[in-house]
Amino acid sequence: MSAASFLRKLIAGGSKGGVDERIELLLSHCNALLAESGEYASMAIAGQALAVYKALDERARQQFFDILARDYSPAPDVVARAAEAYREDPSPERLEALQNEVEPRRQELFRRLNMAAGGTAALVGMRKTLLQGLRAHPQWSVIDADLRHLLRSWFNRGFLRLERIDWRTPALVLEKLIDYEAVHAIRGWWDLRRRLENDRRCFAFFHAQLPDEPIIFIEVALTRGMSAQVQPLLDKGAPVGSPSSADCAMFYSITNCQEGLRGISFGNLLIKQVAEELKREFPHLRRFATLSPIPGFRAWLEKATFNGENAALLARLKDPAWHLGGLPEDLPKLLMRVCAYYLLRAKHGKEPLDPVARFHLGNGAALERLNWMGDTSEQGMARSAGIMANYVYWLAEVEHNHEAYFREHVIAASPAIEKLARECPLPAPAAT
Amino acid sequence: MSAASFLRKLIAGGSKGGVDERIELLLSHCNALLAESGEYASMAIAGQALAVYKALDERARQQFFDILARDYSPAPDVVARAAEAYREDPSPERLEALQNEVEPRRQELFRRLNMAAGGTAALVGMRKTLLQGLRAHPQWSVIDADLRHLLRSWFNRGFLRLERIDWRTPALVLEKLIDYEAVHAIRGWWDLRRRLENDRRCFAFFHAQLPDEPIIFIEVALTRGMSAQVQPLLDKGAPVGSPSSADCAMFYSITNCQEGLRGISFGNLLIKQVAEELKREFPHLRRFATLSPIPGFRAWLEKATFNGENAALLARLKDPAWHLGGLPEDLPKLLMRVCAYYLLRAKHGKEPLDPVARFHLGNGAALERLNWMGDTSEQGMARSAGIMANYVYWLAEVEHNHEAYFREHVIAASPAIEKLARECPLPAPAAT
Amino acid sequence: MSAASFLRKLIAGGSKGGVDERIELLLSHCNALLAESGEYASMAIAGQALAVYKALDERARQQFFDILARDYSPAPDVVARAAEAYREDPSPERLEALQNEVEPRRQELFRRLNMAAGGTAALVGMRKTLLQGLRAHPQWSVIDADLRHLLRSWFNRGFLRLERIDWRTPALVLEKLIDYEAVHAIRGWWDLRRRLENDRRCFAFFHAQLPDEPIIFIEVALTRGMSAQVQPLLDKGAPVGSPSSADCAMFYSITNCQEGLRGISFGNLLIKQVAEELKREFPHLRRFATLSPIPGFRAWLEKATFNGENAALLARLKDPAWHLGGLPEDLPKLLMRVCAYYLLRAKHGKEPLDPVARFHLGNGAALERLNWMGDTSEQGMARSAGIMANYVYWLAEVEHNHEAYFREHVIAASPAIEKLARECPLPAPAAT
Amino acid sequence: MSAASFLRKLIAGGSKGGVDERIELLLSHCNALLAESGEYASMAIAGQALAVYKALDERARQQFFDILARDYSPAPDVVARAAEAYREDPSPERLEALQNEVEPRRQELFRRLNMAAGGTAALVGMRKTLLQGLRAHPQWSVIDADLRHLLRSWFNRGFLRLERIDWRTPALVLEKLIDYEAVHAIRGWWDLRRRLENDRRCFAFFHAQLPDEPIIFIEVALTRGMSAQVQPLLDKGAPVGSPSSADCAMFYSITNCQEGLRGISFGNLLIKQVAEELKREFPHLRRFATLSPIPGFRAWLEKATFNGENAALLARLKDPAWHLGGLPEDLPKLLMRVCAYYLLRAKHGKEPLDPVARFHLGNGAALERLNWMGDTSEQGMARSAGIMANYVYWLAEVEHNHEAYFREHVIAASPAIEKLARECPLPAPAAT
Repeated sequence: MSAASFLRKLIAGGSKGGVDERIELLLSHCNALLAESGEYASMAIAGQALAVYKALDERARQQFFDILARDYSPAPDVVARAAEAYREDPSPERLEALQNEVEPRRQELFRRLNMAAGGTAALVGMRKTLLQGLRAHPQWSVIDADLRHLLRSWFNRGFLRLERIDWRTPALVLEKLIDYEAVHAIRGWWDLRRRLENDRRCFAFFHAQLPDEPIIFIEVALTRGMSAQVQPLLDKGAPVGSPSSADCAMFYSITNCQEGLRGISFGNLLIKQVAEELKREFPHLRRFATLSPIPGFRAWLEKATFNGENAALLARLKDPAWHLGGLPEDLPKLLMRVCAYYLLRAKHGKEPLDPVARFHLGNGAALERLNWMGDTSEQGMARSAGIMANYVYWLAEVEHNHEAYFREHVIAASPAIEKLARECPLPAPAAT
Repeated sequence: MSAASFLRKLIAGGSKGGVDERIELLLSHCNALLAESGEYASMAIAGQALAVYKALDERARQQFFDILARDYSPAPDVVARAAEAYREDPSPERLEALQNEVEPRRQELFRRLNMAAGGTAALVGMRKTLLQGLRAHPQWSVIDADLRHLLRSWFNRGFLRLERIDWRTPALVLEKLIDYEAVHAIRGWWDLRRRLENDRRCFAFFHAQLPDEPIIFIEVALTRGMSAQVQPLLDKGAPVGSPSSADCAMFYSITNCQEGLRGISFGNLLIKQVAEELKREFPHLRRFATLSPIPGFRAWLEKATFNGENAALLARLKDPAWHLGGLPEDLPKLLMRVCAYYLLRAKHGKEPLDPVARFHLGNGAALERLNWMGDTSEQGMARSAGIMANYVYWLAEVEHNHEAYFREHVIAASPAIEKLARECPLPAPAAT
Repeated sequence: MSAASFLRKLIAGGSKGGVDERIELLLSHCNALLAESGEYASMAIAGQALAVYKALDERARQQFFDILARDYSPAPDVVARAAEAYREDPSPERLEALQNEVEPRRQELFRRLNMAAGGTAALVGMRKTLLQGLRAHPQWSVIDADLRHLLRSWFNRGFLRLERIDWRTPALVLEKLIDYEAVHAIRGWWDLRRRLENDRRCFAFFHAQLPDEPIIFIEVALTRGMSAQVQPLLDKGAPVGSPSSADCAMFYSITNCQEGLRGISFGNLLIKQVAEELKREFPHLRRFATLSPIPGFRAWLEKATFNGENAALLARLKDPAWHLGGLPEDLPKLLMRVCAYYLLRAKHGKEPLDPVARFHLGNGAALERLNWMGDTSEQGMARSAGIMANYVYWLAEVEHNHEAYFREHVIAASPAIEKLARECPLPAPAAT
Repeated sequence: MSAASFLRKLIAGGSKGGVDERIELLLSHCNALLAESGEYASMAIAGQALAVYKALDERARQQFFDILARDYSPAPDVVARAAEAYREDPSPERLEALQNEVEPRRQELFRRLNMAAGGTAALVGMRKTLLQGLRAHPQWSVIDADLRHLLRSWFNRGFLRLERIDWRTPALVLEKLIDYEAVHAIRGWWDLRRRLENDRRCFAFFHAQLPDEPIIFIEVALTRGMSAQVQPLLDKGAPVGSPSSADCAMFYSITNCQEGLRGISFGNLLIKQVAEELKREFPHLRRFATLSPIPGFRAWLEKATFNGENAALLARLKDPAWHLGGLPEDLPKLLMRVCAYYLLRAKHGKEPLDPVARFHLGNGAALERLNWMGDTSEQGMARSAGIMANYVYWLAEVEHNHEAYFREHVIAASPAIEKLARECPLPAPAAT
């Protein structure tokens, strides 16, 4: 059923929930765009279509997505015939014919919408909206597949530009860092300013079609020795160190800025390119490491079962102020062991349960150290019982670790952390 | 048959013409690239693969293309099964599975090669090489389809940047204009300099991934009245006019620079964006027109059949110097009529036979005037009997003309040219 | 007495308060710099001298300035001889010899210090320090004359660059606007951001040798009708207007940023160039006007003598909250009249007593309107009794007004203001 | 006599050769400019004055310069009174008064002309014209002194910007290098292109007020070993070397571009900053040397007196083709000795007679080697008998050599050159 006939049916049905005029207009633009043979005219139509789309309210967008999912997918019969024809004669012509049938018309539609001024940003925004409703509208996943396919191609590494962010960066961009920062909230311009001082570095990827919009950014502190606590790094009043005496680059925050690019991974690249960049600027740096949250620890801990004595100790965590005032000597020791166990043994499929661990270990980093009271913020206590992890990027081992992780699910960890995990009172999981 | 087994077979066969070590190395890089899950490692492998590819000689490249065509296409059986499954249950999952099977692995390979530094330029270069051998190796057309598909997406209008070229442009870029100019050869820096004076404009599209490489460029003269001859425009010594007194923008040369982007059309967009740009700078411009060659006229004329008197007149063209010295009064009149006939009636399918006419009429321009002795250069005489055409871009009519051209194959032409064509002694073609 | 002998004497005198080692070092650098014939070596010495100077404490700087004033001035005898020689024979050679003797060695010293990296900024800073101590050390005025002479030449209009400031400007520069703003304090980044929205414009002069340092900046609001109150312009929550519907450009704040450039005037130029710039961007603007404080009004009013009834009314101003709550009907009327009188009749020499009036009237603006409760901020009430003035820059009359002001001390004022001044109960001043 | 009365007199005299209307207009602009108190109005008047000046023909310019020299100089009587007043009371006020009287009004005039758009370039051009006529009009030297004084201040090192010139530089600038090159003429774009290849470097100083105008530029070849001949460096077809294997930076051409800045020296700075820049880019460079002409050698040789045998040998030089075909064995040996003698012993005051030697030795370079047939071009043979010199800039010794040269007139030369000079048959000059 074509979009037009579907529309007629809906309208004929007189359903109150029917396609309204704005969607009719949007679809007529979309179809005109698909029919247009001239690039110049296409640019104008694409611009009009996006303007109409942007003016839609939430309900209308849902209708539009429903139609995109239903009416712009390949027709099963036609596809099967083209596949059969290719099986009979696997010629270039039949392959091309088959490809044409299999590619949803949506993809070409999105490609043409991208021609409008601001088209790429609009499509990234469209996918953001789509992802927000995907759980409630699983049928939209076909749209998401098309958008993801195109965006992955357009946001190919070849098209990204690594840029340093500092106090010379336009306020327009800095303001967005304040908005986007997802790990350790930036509390204002003064906070951002401290994070851009001479003993810090900040880098972001940009894309020519999203000017002034960081795609992903990372914050680095240049320190002597590996940082164990994040609060000193976030302290506005901390004296500014000299980068020339630093021997560690501490990655203490990494934030993906564009919801609409979810699932298109940039972090791996960013960390390694920034490490290269820093190595060039400061050849004396000896260690590239993170100071990372362990966001899933407390949630997992709630569900774990401990025996009497340990259970009693851990019960103290129910008090939100458990870490203030005196602590039983054994509690820190126990929590560190359990946390090491969580990072090394708790799984999501064959990978670690903790998402940050999955990210860094998958990148080829090694889990080096756990830090007691590494993040005493409310969020740090609530998620990680205050513990933070250092993952180290040993440049010489990163590729080997990365391969071992993906092929054999090996987690690179320091002996100290292995020992902590073994000392955890929980039973070792059955070998898989 | 996988690339690896194909290789083994070839090598086992011990054929002297077998796959040599360099191709083996290249294929192993390609396969490693397809297997790699980390973007950072991918960048490095992609760079290595492109370095090996670039070092290949012609014969080795042919072998590589043969293997790409044969072993990186979808397997017909597998595709048919996936299509059947989708017919049985047209779910998102099965659609995605089908799409995955139908997309040649080549496409993903090219996408990943694009991650290397200079990857886009390398792929544009690869397609150039491929196109040069395509006639002799028709099986490569599947590779071309994949490259064209990706390049069309990456060179989407949204990713192009219109830039003015003038005497402030880096020599690096200007030098390329001299090399690339395909319509009226630039005879040296002094010639280029005249073409960039204050009564001229030159614009090009650029792409972020091909820095310093124009994609397409156009040369414009700002004149009083519509130019009828090109030699005055190319005359180094012509006095520099004042743009403020001009009423016409004459597009007298447009050149596609990148062979590897053949078939991905930019000219339509470029002309219209340049017209907009000029209109902004010079609101008093009243006409945007071309001074264009008619490159297919003489070749077509050779094959046309004329009656006695006209045939005798036209026979004079066999003398290369026919236009020097006195001409029979009737010859210009006859040639102008026959040329109008050629442009309006001679067809390639339903479109005009003349490629320049196809381009401008397809863009929505109107054929306005023919100019006797418009181009007296050797090439101009050899191809067009010295005649040049003015196509006019009436901004208000361009879209209407463009649609009428594509839907009904209507050629927009001035009454004067219609009259010339009717007066041509050749018979009107049968109505189609 | 040469610097060296002066030093010896001081040191020999063994006075504890004598020239310390750092000044000795600085002077030896200065003398080496004056003796040096190579530019490259000069750059290095100049850098060293400035480094020593910057490290001096306040007392040492005073000593340095004392020596600069005493020992680097021309010797009266030598000068008189050279002047006499020139009178006898006014030849080029003798003129040049005379000029060489009359120019203090300080000037050449400052010129050479300017060769160091950051030299210009250092000299601007040095003059700032000098001016702070000038009242207490009148002998330094000769140093000031030399610095002012050089800075005026180096900060010649030809060397200034007008730049628009907006939300794309580096934070580094924006931060300085927040620091420097002298008229209506910027209360934070959010306040600055509102002042850079689409219905506002901000421009500054920059100099190539003071990168990232605004020299002077001006803030403009694009409004419908001439603004009468400043608080709405400073209101963060005010809706952003459309510049295309504005007919007035209101200059509501102008700030000189560099203390060290005091007395080198840029404001006249800035206002007029900004007016030109705005006229280009918004040809429909019909009026360029200020919304200005009247900073000297209350201070002058304190000293003025009024008769019984008026004196009683004005006595209410002693209550800091006089304007809150009900006001006697006659008070506003009286204050407006007195204020008009102040602006038109109160003099400083032959010019208006009010410094802001002197600036705008001297620029050729006309005093157009007084606004009751134009600035209700604490400062606005304290200085101007809340009244603000609109000065209008009629582009066609600016030069004529400027000339009339400087030649005949004529104040261009609207009839309404003339009338207010005539109605003031104070006696008209005697004609001069 | 004031300019106005001078004018009246001239005009009243009715002399045909009198001041014409254009000069009257120009002078009235100049006087208005000096009288103007507003910067904005000054800019406009300055622009008008310069426009009138530029339109003057040569004779009118001479008249203008005559008036500038005569009527804009300080009045001897007034100056003497001010000097006397200062002798009586050397107060700051009287010093300032004296300075005001001694400074010619021309200087302030030039300062104000500099406010016009393009003012600096116009003043540089004015001085160029002035210098061309200075020998015939010695009275203009007072104007030159004022212009030189101001230009020296404005072209202070602090205001110059070192920029690399390469094939990315705008054609607009490259074209000027072709025009200006004064040492080894650039024969066209292809020649320039070779000089900008990867084994070469080119740097220039620019000034913000002369955009696109190089002030001075230098060409460098990166070579293995010190170059002895210039023709290989100028050979278009010479293979491009790898800068990473070079150990020498050969400065083979340095050109001052602005006649109007004659006598304001930039070469010393440029060479040393370029050496620093190169040292940074190529830390393995071991030697910074020139390959220099000896422009005064042949002219001096003509006048030198030799004894019989040597005279006979040297007489061969009268044949322009003397160096082609076989040479008497003793001639090269003799010429090299005489050339060394010329460089070390022939004097202009206390400095070397050869201007290139004066420049490099004054900069602190050492004369290292003479090269037989170093420049076989027509000019090279005519000026230097084909011999070229290598001056070496040993960074560690440059300052010491520079001081020894200026204080004691010591020429730093290699033992080999000292020996050649001693072997010269000419008598050693009397010790000074």
